Amino acid sequence: MTAGFKKYSDKECSGNLNAIGDALYAIGGKWKLRLIVALMEGSRRFNEIQRTVVGISAKVLSKELKELEMNGFIRKIEHKGSLVTTSYELTSYSHSLNPVIEALNRWGRQHRKKIIGKE
Amino acid sequence: MTAGFKKYSDKECSGNLNAIGDALYAIGGKWKLRLIVALMEGSRRFNEIQRTVVGISAKVLSKELKELEMNGFIRKIEHKGSLVTTSYELTSYSHSLNPVIEALNRWGRQHRKKIIGKE
Repeated sequence: MTAGFKKYSDKECSGNLNAIGDALYAIGGKWKLRLIVALMEGSRRFNEIQRTVVGISAKVLSKELKELEMNGFIRKIEHKGSLVTTSYELTSYSHSLNPVIEALNRWGRQHRKKIIGKE
Repeated sequence: MTAGFKKYSDKECSGNLNAIGDALYAIGGKWKLRLIVALMEGSRRFNEIQRTVVGISAKVLSKELKELEMNGFIRKIEHKGSLVTTSYELTSYSHSLNPVIEALNRWGRQHRKKIIGKE
C-alpha cells in the first residue's frame, strides 16, 4: 500500500481508461459481478439466486441474467422432468473474470476493516 | 482461462458476496474508477479531468469528486496565486486499488479483443 502508482503517459492513460470503460460496460453496475459470484458455487435456479443475492428484485434479476447470458458469461440449462425446471451456470468465459473478482474480494475485505476501524 | 472457479461453501460465498458488495459500494458505478485512473497521471484540475473522462457532465463530476474525497481516495489542493485554483490528486489510500485497476485493465483489453474478433 505504500507503493505509488505508476505514472502513465497521456496515451497510456487513455488506453487504460478505454480498457476499464470496456470492463465496466460489460460487468459494471450493481448486480452483474455479484450474480457471477453467486453462481461460483455451482448451477442455481432463479429462486435460489434471488435468495443468495440479497436485495435484487425478480424483475431486475431476470433482466440481468438475460444480459449475462447474451454476453456469454452464463448459460441456461433446462431440466426435463414432470415439470421443466431451468437453472443457470457459469460458462468457461466467466472464468476469465477470476483475477478481477479476486482483486475486488481482497480489496473489499481490507476496505471494510479500514471503515470499521474508523468508526 | 481454462482453469475453473474454485467451488465455495455457502458461508465462503456469502463472505465473498459481502466483500464484493463493499467494494462495489465504494468504487462501483460508472465513473469512480475512471476518475481514479484519470488522476493516476498526476494531479489535475476540474476541467482537465472533464476533458480526459469523456462523457461526464460537470454536475456529475462535481458530485463524484466530492464522494471520492469524502471516502479518502482523492484530496483537493488549493494553489494560491492571483487567482485561487483547485486541483485534485490521489491519496495514498487510492494506491490500495492498484490490483483491482490492473485486473480490470487486463480483463477489459482481452474482452475487447474477444468482442472485436466476434463481429
